[in-house]
Amino acid sequence: MDNRIYNFNAGPAALPLPVLKRIQEEFLNFKGSGMSITEVSHRSKWFDEVIESAVERTRRLLKLDDHYKVLFIQGGASLQFCMIPMNLSVAGKSADYINTGTWSTKAIKEAEIQGKDIKVIASSEDKHFSYIPRDLKPNPDASYLHFTSNNTIKGTQFAKFPDAGGVPLVCDMSSDILSRPFDVSPFGLIYAGAQKNIGPAGTALVIIRDDMLERVPDNIPTMLRYTTFADKNSMFNTPACFVIYTISLVLEWLENDIGGLAEMEKQNRAKAALLYEFFDKSGFFTGTAAPDSRSMMNVTFRMPSEVLEKKFVAEALSEGLGGLKGHKSVGGCRASIYNPTTLDAVKYLTEFMAAFEAKNG
Amino acid sequence: MDNRIYNFNAGPAALPLPVLKRIQEEFLNFKGSGMSITEVSHRSKWFDEVIESAVERTRRLLKLDDHYKVLFIQGGASLQFCMIPMNLSVAGKSADYINTGTWSTKAIKEAEIQGKDIKVIASSEDKHFSYIPRDLKPNPDASYLHFTSNNTIKGTQFAKFPDAGGVPLVCDMSSDILSRPFDVSPFGLIYAGAQKNIGPAGTALVIIRDDMLERVPDNIPTMLRYTTFADKNSMFNTPACFVIYTISLVLEWLENDIGGLAEMEKQNRAKAALLYEFFDKSGFFTGTAAPDSRSMMNVTFRMPSEVLEKKFVAEALSEGLGGLKGHKSVGGCRASIYNPTTLDAVKYLTEFMAAFEAKNG
Repeated sequence: MDNRIYNFNAGPAALPLPVLKRIQEEFLNFKGSGMSITEVSHRSKWFDEVIESAVERTRRLLKLDDHYKVLFIQGGASLQFCMIPMNLSVAGKSADYINTGTWSTKAIKEAEIQGKDIKVIASSEDKHFSYIPRDLKPNPDASYLHFTSNNTIKGTQFAKFPDAGGVPLVCDMSSDILSRPFDVSPFGLIYAGAQKNIGPAGTALVIIRDDMLERVPDNIPTMLRYTTFADKNSMFNTPACFVIYTISLVLEWLENDIGGLAEMEKQNRAKAALLYEFFDKSGFFTGTAAPDSRSMMNVTFRMPSEVLEKKFVAEALSEGLGGLKGHKSVGGCRASIYNPTTLDAVKYLTEFMAAFEAKNG
Repeated sequence: MDNRIYNFNAGPAALPLPVLKRIQEEFLNFKGSGMSITEVSHRSKWFDEVIESAVERTRRLLKLDDHYKVLFIQGGASLQFCMIPMNLSVAGKSADYINTGTWSTKAIKEAEIQGKDIKVIASSEDKHFSYIPRDLKPNPDASYLHFTSNNTIKGTQFAKFPDAGGVPLVCDMSSDILSRPFDVSPFGLIYAGAQKNIGPAGTALVIIRDDMLERVPDNIPTMLRYTTFADKNSMFNTPACFVIYTISLVLEWLENDIGGLAEMEKQNRAKAALLYEFFDKSGFFTGTAAPDSRSMMNVTFRMPSEVLEKKFVAEALSEGLGGLKGHKSVGGCRASIYNPTTLDAVKYLTEFMAAFEAKNG
């Protein structure tokens, strides 16, 4: 283990150990180039292969057809919040949103700053975003319908994606991208900050459908146009090379070591089930998300008191279990169990929780 | 050398070998955290120390007083081209530019897209940007005066910065930031893509003065406002953690191993002099920049024919000298000799050039 901890951070988060070891091994001399991956030109054959691998692996894993482009854009999901209404809202049509928490709220705010006609068609704010709204009534005349597939802070996740008829879905998948297979065809745009399921911080992965590119106006700044990135294979300017390189290795691991998204989902379900089944039996640890909205990625929970929660987080860390503190805006505890987190790590955590309950319950 | 080459790439470019070795060494377990630097939270004490070190070292190296903030913003210099007019142009005042080549031209274009009132007060386009304009007549009523301190493509550099009276200077220093000491006080904003002198690709370093922050309008997207980054120490959202970490190590090397900017300039001058003095004696290799505008960072040159240039680049590479091809827009050859490039590397290059000339001249 090289004295490594079990890392339950919400993002930046754990990466697969074989990926980290490979980066370390080839760090001074990338594939015989005589240079570090951080030193090769983005216009070189070495980096061409890297970005090609990242794009093609994404295409294969998500079964993308030729109507989709895979882009890497710096600035995280937060920059996407403003690029989406700027590029994709159509005059005379509303920009529709489902509000399931902090990240959706921020996305809505950026559309508001731009003076867009916004419709929030559903929200779970009435119950502190502890659930995913059902029985949606999407508006058939919207420019798009935006939602956040997984809420990292509240530990909720869409089990089934909304059906918006022909209206393009636009989705922030930052915290569950590539964690399970799904049908991409209703989506006009999918975006994800890399630092949870697929790599280190420093780029967003953006998947965009042809017809969305046709909406991009000419009069917005070059670096804020999706067409700029689509036309130049994400290399209009120097991209976040090291981050894209790491993503390419994580996707290689996902294809070759894990065996693809169906197998990844199976493992993710098994990890989450361990924790949720434990909560359901425990009178001490309580899950905070509504049972039908529980996230496979971020498992949020409380204990009988904040004093106990603090003790739990500190004792867990001393046992090599890190990152279990809840988001500062909500308190409590959280175990983020993205793709790279192993079943063993989750088993070790539940064993520690059982022992902690026995001692303190 | 671990089979490493002498790397004369224009960017991404060579990094100091001791920095690369340290990254490699601590890659699986950053400072006893039990996590890779790519896995630690940006809200952790580990990353706090990293970004604090990067900021404080920049402050010390450039002798910044409390009126300046040091920020890290993703998207490279290209995103800054649009953020500058969006944030800093004042109604009723023109946005002024000096045009010394491709990058200045791109910066001007982004101000045009936004419909700003632009004045190009000087340009070297008449001679294919082979020189830096002199005898400037800055306009005392401008919002700012923008210039590019070093042109990577044409190998030209401002030896002395323009005096614009009280008008704030705004400068793209992507290719010569921290290569020499200078007086920061006339500058309202300095920006630099990291991937040349200070780190890997994936962030811009932005140095902004208080009074510029007061100009930032409220009605622009959150992620495009300098105040968003200034108010949250560049962590409104997850920053490019690995890139900032590497920058912090490069700046540590610059302070401790090199000994600061005055010493760095001395070394950079010595490296450039080796090449320019060689050209001045050679009848075979010819520098392309006007002698009074020669860059210490990017040394551009031609040979008697394109066939010879191609042969030179190929033979150099087989001798372990990489990245000597000129920018595709201008052809010819270029040796980029940023801070991390050693005097030994440049000596080896000039020896190779002399031998090549003897054989082919």
